[in-house]
Amino acid sequence: MAPNGKPVIGFIGLGIMGKPMARNLMKTGYSLVVHNRGRGPVDELVKEGARAGSSPKDVAQQSDVVITMLPDSPDVEEVVLGKDGVLEGLRPGATLVDMSTIKPAVARRVAEAVVKKLGKALDAPVSGGEKGATEATLSIMVGGPQDVFDAVLPIFQTLGKNIVLVGDSGAGQIAKAANQLVVGVTIEAVAEALALAEAAGVDPAKVRAVLLGGFAQSKILDMHGQRMLDGNFVPGFKAKLHQKDMRIVTETAQESGLDAPAGALALDRFTKLVDSGGGEKDHSALRTLLKAKSAATR
Amino acid sequence: MAPNGKPVIGFIGLGIMGKPMARNLMKTGYSLVVHNRGRGPVDELVKEGARAGSSPKDVAQQSDVVITMLPDSPDVEEVVLGKDGVLEGLRPGATLVDMSTIKPAVARRVAEAVVKKLGKALDAPVSGGEKGATEATLSIMVGGPQDVFDAVLPIFQTLGKNIVLVGDSGAGQIAKAANQLVVGVTIEAVAEALALAEAAGVDPAKVRAVLLGGFAQSKILDMHGQRMLDGNFVPGFKAKLHQKDMRIVTETAQESGLDAPAGALALDRFTKLVDSGGGEKDHSALRTLLKAKSAATR
Repeated sequence: MAPNGKPVIGFIGLGIMGKPMARNLMKTGYSLVVHNRGRGPVDELVKEGARAGSSPKDVAQQSDVVITMLPDSPDVEEVVLGKDGVLEGLRPGATLVDMSTIKPAVARRVAEAVVKKLGKALDAPVSGGEKGATEATLSIMVGGPQDVFDAVLPIFQTLGKNIVLVGDSGAGQIAKAANQLVVGVTIEAVAEALALAEAAGVDPAKVRAVLLGGFAQSKILDMHGQRMLDGNFVPGFKAKLHQKDMRIVTETAQESGLDAPAGALALDRFTKLVDSGGGEKDHSALRTLLKAKSAATR
Repeated sequence: MAPNGKPVIGFIGLGIMGKPMARNLMKTGYSLVVHNRGRGPVDELVKEGARAGSSPKDVAQQSDVVITMLPDSPDVEEVVLGKDGVLEGLRPGATLVDMSTIKPAVARRVAEAVVKKLGKALDAPVSGGEKGATEATLSIMVGGPQDVFDAVLPIFQTLGKNIVLVGDSGAGQIAKAANQLVVGVTIEAVAEALALAEAAGVDPAKVRAVLLGGFAQSKILDMHGQRMLDGNFVPGFKAKLHQKDMRIVTETAQESGLDAPAGALALDRFTKLVDSGGGEKDHSALRTLLKAKSAATR
């Protein structure tokens, strides 16, 4: 506990999402111990009042709740289960909240390891992007025990708006996979719709405007549709990360015995975008894959 | 002109959409002359104050503005261009507003025929379904000349909320094709996401709830997602009509030299649903195509 009675929070992974989330926690009066592979964001947050942890283990030794916000499953395995990892330093009764988007099976394995060390664990991936992280309006999808969820809820409320305990350990990651499936497929749908308008000689901006008023309305049509019209593919959320998430989707579907053809198509499209050099662009850059053949070449 | 100074409106096609639209026009004080293939809805509206036209030609002879709301391209061609059709009765200077969802090329051909007869024409398909038709909150996508649009705008405002002149003749149908592409693909995405949750042992209702707060938000997730959870596939909008619309989408894409793989997939899914006997169900019944194989058969 910090002197103000709030739990001390360890925060590991200060990327595009993690850094603004850590900032929102500090603004609400939480004491933070932070760690990141690259030193830059650590120095920034230390200037604003955080302490630096020298390793994930060191962070865990000083924290009541450890939050991880990392790119992929292997990163979480390394940072939590690896040498000098969170598990080596975790205090009995402390809680690990993994907010990364990773495979449900890995989330369950990590949670089991934490519980074996007498810790508590939640998987709590988010949706809402950099904007949601900065404005503390993230959707948070949580898997784990009810009492652990209840204890961590005030922290979640500092980070987001729509916070749901979806089920047991791993359920947050299942919900996130469902989320990424919908988001990825909807981006492709919006890209094709705007490309169709343009190819048929109709102003895609007007099409977006009228579609926003009917059944085609979505946050993706609104935000990512505008990015497509502007040709502005600064991330946001990188295509290569969405490719990774679509792999999680298709693997999870396969493991569950489900055919998900639109999910498979979206993975295919992101792979095409990444392979053609667009991996660092915003995921809305799927629009750039769609080019009408000129009349001459048809 | 009717005695109240408002144009007399002919309304042809009193189906799931047309009937409530005609009612909204009557409520606002328009005089209506109505026609429908089946006599039932005509009798209903006559009881409420409409006149019955004996044929599309007869309707046109009595009207300043003729609205058609029909299932498919051949219906519009027959009702407008065929024997005893609108064109035979259309007064010089009168306006045909086709609000059906049909092929852009047919829309342009019909408009040209009307203009040749010294009439005016708009294509003005809608989105928003039976609910939007009843509550007068339809999105209306209009193609045609600005001055004709301006003259008809008060009528549109009686039927919908988000009304956009998208471009020249046929542009409304292009926008509608874009709309149906987004709607069809999004339904498949939502169906796969909820099926994935269920197959992986997570409550799909909770997944829908948390997804509604993030980037996955859409009107489809909200309304059609709820239908899927309820297993309520009473139309709404029939799958066989969405199949027809997805054919228009893929044909229009092809004619424009565009590959639209998600659009093609959605056509494929609707065809599968229709072929397995689900054509009369709501389009959200795409959910019923997704069944996880049991562990034993994997």
